[in-house]
Amino acid sequence: MSPDPGRAFAVEPWVVREPRLDLDRMGQVESVFALSNGHIGLRGNLDEGEPHAMPGTYLNSFYERRPLPYAEGGYGYPESGQTIINVTNGKLIRLLVEDEPFDLRYGQLHRHERVLDLRAGTLTREVEWASPAGRVVRVRSTRMVSLTQRAIAAICYEVEVLDEPALLVVQSELVANEQLPGRDEADPRVEAALTDPLVAEQHRSAEASATLLHRTRRSGLRVAAAMDHEVHGPDGVKVTTEATEDIGRTTVIARLEPGRTLRLVKYLAYGWSSRRSLPALHDQVRAALAAARYTGWDGLVAEQRQYLDEFWETADVEIDGDAELQQAVRLATFHVLQAGARAERRAIGAKGLTGEGYDGHTFWDTETFCLPVLSHLAPEAAADALRWRQSILPLAYERAEQLGLGGAAFPWRTIRGQECSGYWPAGTAAFHINADIADAVRRHVAATGDEVFEREVGLELVVATARLWRSLGHHDSSGQFRIDGVTGPDEYTAIVDNNVYTNLMAQQNLRVAADTAARHARAAARLGVNAEEMASWRDAAKSMRIPFDDVLGVHPQAEGFTNHQVWDFEATPPQMYPLLLNVPYFDLYRKQVIKQADLVLAMQLRPDAFSLEQMRRNFAYYESLTVRDSSLSACTQAVVAAWTGHLDLAYDYLGEAALVDLDDLAGNSDHGVHIASMAGTWTAVVSGFGGMRMDAGGTGGISFAPRLPPALSRISFGLRWQGRQLRVEIRPGEAEYRLVSGPPMRLHHHGEPLALGDEAQVREIPALDPVDPVEQPYGRVPKGRHPGS
Amino acid sequence: MSPDPGRAFAVEPWVVREPRLDLDRMGQVESVFALSNGHIGLRGNLDEGEPHAMPGTYLNSFYERRPLPYAEGGYGYPESGQTIINVTNGKLIRLLVEDEPFDLRYGQLHRHERVLDLRAGTLTREVEWASPAGRVVRVRSTRMVSLTQRAIAAICYEVEVLDEPALLVVQSELVANEQLPGRDEADPRVEAALTDPLVAEQHRSAEASATLLHRTRRSGLRVAAAMDHEVHGPDGVKVTTEATEDIGRTTVIARLEPGRTLRLVKYLAYGWSSRRSLPALHDQVRAALAAARYTGWDGLVAEQRQYLDEFWETADVEIDGDAELQQAVRLATFHVLQAGARAERRAIGAKGLTGEGYDGHTFWDTETFCLPVLSHLAPEAAADALRWRQSILPLAYERAEQLGLGGAAFPWRTIRGQECSGYWPAGTAAFHINADIADAVRRHVAATGDEVFEREVGLELVVATARLWRSLGHHDSSGQFRIDGVTGPDEYTAIVDNNVYTNLMAQQNLRVAADTAARHARAAARLGVNAEEMASWRDAAKSMRIPFDDVLGVHPQAEGFTNHQVWDFEATPPQMYPLLLNVPYFDLYRKQVIKQADLVLAMQLRPDAFSLEQMRRNFAYYESLTVRDSSLSACTQAVVAAWTGHLDLAYDYLGEAALVDLDDLAGNSDHGVHIASMAGTWTAVVSGFGGMRMDAGGTGGISFAPRLPPALSRISFGLRWQGRQLRVEIRPGEAEYRLVSGPPMRLHHHGEPLALGDEAQVREIPALDPVDPVEQPYGRVPKGRHPGS
Repeated sequence: MSPDPGRAFAVEPWVVREPRLDLDRMGQVESVFALSNGHIGLRGNLDEGEPHAMPGTYLNSFYERRPLPYAEGGYGYPESGQTIINVTNGKLIRLLVEDEPFDLRYGQLHRHERVLDLRAGTLTREVEWASPAGRVVRVRSTRMVSLTQRAIAAICYEVEVLDEPALLVVQSELVANEQLPGRDEADPRVEAALTDPLVAEQHRSAEASATLLHRTRRSGLRVAAAMDHEVHGPDGVKVTTEATEDIGRTTVIARLEPGRTLRLVKYLAYGWSSRRSLPALHDQVRAALAAARYTGWDGLVAEQRQYLDEFWETADVEIDGDAELQQAVRLATFHVLQAGARAERRAIGAKGLTGEGYDGHTFWDTETFCLPVLSHLAPEAAADALRWRQSILPLAYERAEQLGLGGAAFPWRTIRGQECSGYWPAGTAAFHINADIADAVRRHVAATGDEVFEREVGLELVVATARLWRSLGHHDSSGQFRIDGVTGPDEYTAIVDNNVYTNLMAQQNLRVAADTAARHARAAARLGVNAEEMASWRDAAKSMRIPFDDVLGVHPQAEGFTNHQVWDFEATPPQMYPLLLNVPYFDLYRKQVIKQADLVLAMQLRPDAFSLEQMRRNFAYYESLTVRDSSLSACTQAVVAAWTGHLDLAYDYLGEAALVDLDDLAGNSDHGVHIASMAGTWTAVVSGFGGMRMDAGGTGGISFAPRLPPALSRISFGLRWQGRQLRVEIRPGEAEYRLVSGPPMRLHHHGEPLALGDEAQVREIPALDPVDPVEQPYGRVPKGRHPGS
Repeated sequence: MSPDPGRAFAVEPWVVREPRLDLDRMGQVESVFALSNGHIGLRGNLDEGEPHAMPGTYLNSFYERRPLPYAEGGYGYPESGQTIINVTNGKLIRLLVEDEPFDLRYGQLHRHERVLDLRAGTLTREVEWASPAGRVVRVRSTRMVSLTQRAIAAICYEVEVLDEPALLVVQSELVANEQLPGRDEADPRVEAALTDPLVAEQHRSAEASATLLHRTRRSGLRVAAAMDHEVHGPDGVKVTTEATEDIGRTTVIARLEPGRTLRLVKYLAYGWSSRRSLPALHDQVRAALAAARYTGWDGLVAEQRQYLDEFWETADVEIDGDAELQQAVRLATFHVLQAGARAERRAIGAKGLTGEGYDGHTFWDTETFCLPVLSHLAPEAAADALRWRQSILPLAYERAEQLGLGGAAFPWRTIRGQECSGYWPAGTAAFHINADIADAVRRHVAATGDEVFEREVGLELVVATARLWRSLGHHDSSGQFRIDGVTGPDEYTAIVDNNVYTNLMAQQNLRVAADTAARHARAAARLGVNAEEMASWRDAAKSMRIPFDDVLGVHPQAEGFTNHQVWDFEATPPQMYPLLLNVPYFDLYRKQVIKQADLVLAMQLRPDAFSLEQMRRNFAYYESLTVRDSSLSACTQAVVAAWTGHLDLAYDYLGEAALVDLDDLAGNSDHGVHIASMAGTWTAVVSGFGGMRMDAGGTGGISFAPRLPPALSRISFGLRWQGRQLRVEIRPGEAEYRLVSGPPMRLHHHGEPLALGDEAQVREIPALDPVDPVEQPYGRVPKGRHPGS
């Protein structure tokens, strides 16, 4: 139950327990313990605010503008960026014991435990503390961000005096413009800090409640935060509330006898708008607060558990034989849900709402890693994320026009839709994001069979992106359709011709657009699509150039890639990684060294474009070049390793993807958790070991090719499939398919058709052909989890 | 004699005359009329300071640091830039007529004429002006920056009262931290402005003289400016001088009768140092001033003319048949001399010392365009510029190490040697600058035969750069030596593999290093060069990959270039040019559109690597893609057009190169003149129409293949050649070679050997084979100068 030395958390199946406080890991733990419903995010800061690594209270898409400076500017460079900001902090509950503040850095800490309960959706804390003067108190708090009431968070805070009677003062606060710690600006991945971004507009207080309204200085957004309290304490407890511009404060004073408890339930409501008036926004949060009080603490807790019970019924992945992995996979699934659950037509960021890493931006991660999971576990959240993309199409059309292109060019990184990338070779040039969005549409439609969504949302997205590709590529004199001068997923290469990933994804984008337009002819006509245009998409797709190196017998990542010098891995000591912090882009771009799966990701997402033999050769080749300086790599390598028969390696990579934040493998979990790697964990299990693939289109099929890595005795996973709930169990030598709900269906098991009705079906897993081992670059072998490693 | 409407200057053979003041062209004229000796530069501002476009007083390599900001940073990005600054202005002479300031914007201007005299090396001004109150004065000033006394500038200023007696007050000043006009920051080519960069350290004044000492705030350089005066006026003239921190002011008061003249000679001395103490620097400029006063105004004027007479004896290019071109070629030659004459182991900037464009930085322009001219006209200046490169080798070794490379990596842009490029794809990646420096060494040694220079300076430069190439390139599996991921001269393409220009120049660099090391074995051994290393250079040179497109029968500018989409020139209206201000780099890089000669420059500098047939095909192909958005293009196109038989086109390009500043063809002459285009003008005549080529090495030969464009009746040019002075005259059908001084020599005329002694030799010019016409991109045809155009 105790964590290894060097780990922050204990291993348990359904909870993440921090058995003792470790100030050095505070940032990581704040991120892992962040609670969110996709609309509100609260980092796992201590109730009393300090000590902290980074206090964080976030609202989805609430941002401030900041200038993007350039030593040498250029046409089309975005001049203004967007950055997520820490809004009014409502988590704060300070405590004074007699005349001494409850601060863990002073006095004596007898016990400190925090537990993130993945089924309850709560973060609970238990502390026993002796003040410097020797008064012993027990504090117990439970915090939640409601998945059922989108605007609401709540905290139940209890103090018990253990030794002698004591006068307690509890200050429950709303604080705007919190003082933030400085950050290491030398790391380009670290976000820019913004000081005092909120301008006070209104403050109100009543008995046990307060409301603060602010607006951002530059982006002009308005935010309202309100709190209300229920206090249960001894007779004579006194409750007052005051508010000033940046602070709302409810003060509770009580003299407590030993063994007695002072209990405070704090309800928090948040709202923001770019358009609504002060009174409208004020009333909105007060109404949400009234509903939450009406539901009550117990009611909120019950709703939360019910919501999660329903979620886990489908979503739970069971792993027998690796308790650490079991916990990690559940935590990962939980964070993916938290990121998307109630985002509701707003962006899902790379860090969810768990930290300020990457300025809170949304990248291609969402569509490529996150949505394919949500489409199977929380389809409405996936649909809403794509509806958000549709809502920013006007900006994407504008950006394409600025770049001299047709169709839509979605931003590489953004909060509200404007391009915020300040380095175009790895931003604007990474056009694959547009095909990634189309791919997420394709997968969502295949997973849900939702034709209304396809017609009303999907169609416009695939048409707009197909038009982009048609204008971005061109036919060369031999008739091949080329896409030159773009950047693929691997950020250690940029501005290349015919990146295989990009071209394959664009090819699919063009085909899906033509097919979708054919299926929804009238809706397509309203978008101006005609038969000529559809034919031109099909033709470009058919003529798409996919370079192949005949000498090596592998696909080059892009034209000419395999001619480049191979990075000198032997001469690269461990402290040089991640390379981007220690080597110029210039040197990375011109050599064979890969930050993250690129050609290998192409094989995961377009398996139809590769023979098994090609897949094996390609995987071996790229495995020897990939250093995994990105957290968007291990999960993909896990999938393709499993497909190519490297089950032990797949298992190691699954571990790396799953433990990225629990073990802080990238060293930057303090900036927020890695949502894409967490989503990729699920995919590594389901697509990798489960071998799940879907055909494109609304009525396509689904197939599995399960394989159990030798280290595990059982894997069980569930997913939603076109209105059904399906569960698959992989056991040594066999797999079982079970329809939990929904009409009978057909699927394929290792290529063999299978009809699934009420009765579970068990099928044998065919033996695995032996494969030659593959090698990673010197020093970049993943941590071995598998037996014998 | 009057300029065309739309032109600032009149056409005359030896002077550039501005017949009337045009406030709209003030910036251009200030640049064209800038005087410099390579150490001090004074823009052609009016004596009284205002109105102005940009006041400018520059000292070579005197700069301030400024931060280079990045929206997204990266390893190895320079964090601090260097920018030339306007130092203490000593040109200022203000005049009060009765109680009204002499300001051309008020009162009535009867006459205003300025003349830059290319033989005298002076800028003369004559003004007749009626004050708002009606007093008429005539002001006559002559300004010079001494080519013989490096620290000295001088002004002779005369005022005559024309109608009635008047009280005149003349204030002759030194002003530090002048207020500068704001600049258009949206244009990336425009330099960053710096406010009040100078911190006062000391000020002194005496009778008619003053000295100001300042240091820069961040770069910590110290500058001293001193002035002294001789005053000739009526009895009762009163002279006083005062000084404060930023101002030294000599005031001359005189009551002048009509027809009488007040005459003031102002001597100015400048000095700067990063190391010398206040008293040392103070004394240094006072000593220079004493020497100048001792020489006297007439003496300075006489020295200046003698210096220029000697220069023009070799340097003059005579053009019969095009008076405009005749003037332009002389102005161009004059500015090239001014930029380099007394730079003395400091950098020669892209704008010389005529403006603040490009922050005053030095690029590859110096070695590729400027030094090959100076090696033939002012060899010591060229040698000194290369000695400056040698002096910054420690920084270049450091930079190479930071980039993970061997040898030396010279900065793409700098003032003092540190890399100041804030956009690495067009900065750091443009490694060709290193081969360009080696090429300038090669040319200088060939032109001068100076073996001491070769051993002491050239050897280290070619070895350091050869080592860079050896580490930057690699052998691929087929044994070819590739240079991947670099940027060639054309800035509309970046980060490419095997840029032909780069590879050919690197090839030559490697060969020259091996050959030079062999010639100076002991000196080479001291640099650690051994036979193995020399063999590895020769091997890399021999195996150098030079891509060729067999289908089109042309060299691609870089690997894969000819597969890219051709820019849609027909859809590009004139106002879209220069494209870099209206199109994202992303779009430029991935298409076939060329800013400036790249493959064509390779043909100019490495003619040995191309057959005539290849040269013709390549020229035609690239001609159709080159938009000349850079001033570093027309001169090169002129040379290769002449070589491939397109004499009319060569003539048009020569005109464009020559008139870049006289006609402000790039629209930015206000930021300083285009030294490289001016140098390229001479090269277009001598290498283009003269067909001059040199073999490499200290005792190599020289050859000519003269051709006269139909529009001209005669071209005559001179050059220094291994201690000789040679003059070549091209006439219809024949060419004459004359040895002005020096021992007999051999040369080639159109491939035919020719021995040249005391007697001039005349040879027939063989008939030109007819060639197919070539075409420029739509809308980018050069202005036709040739008959019938």
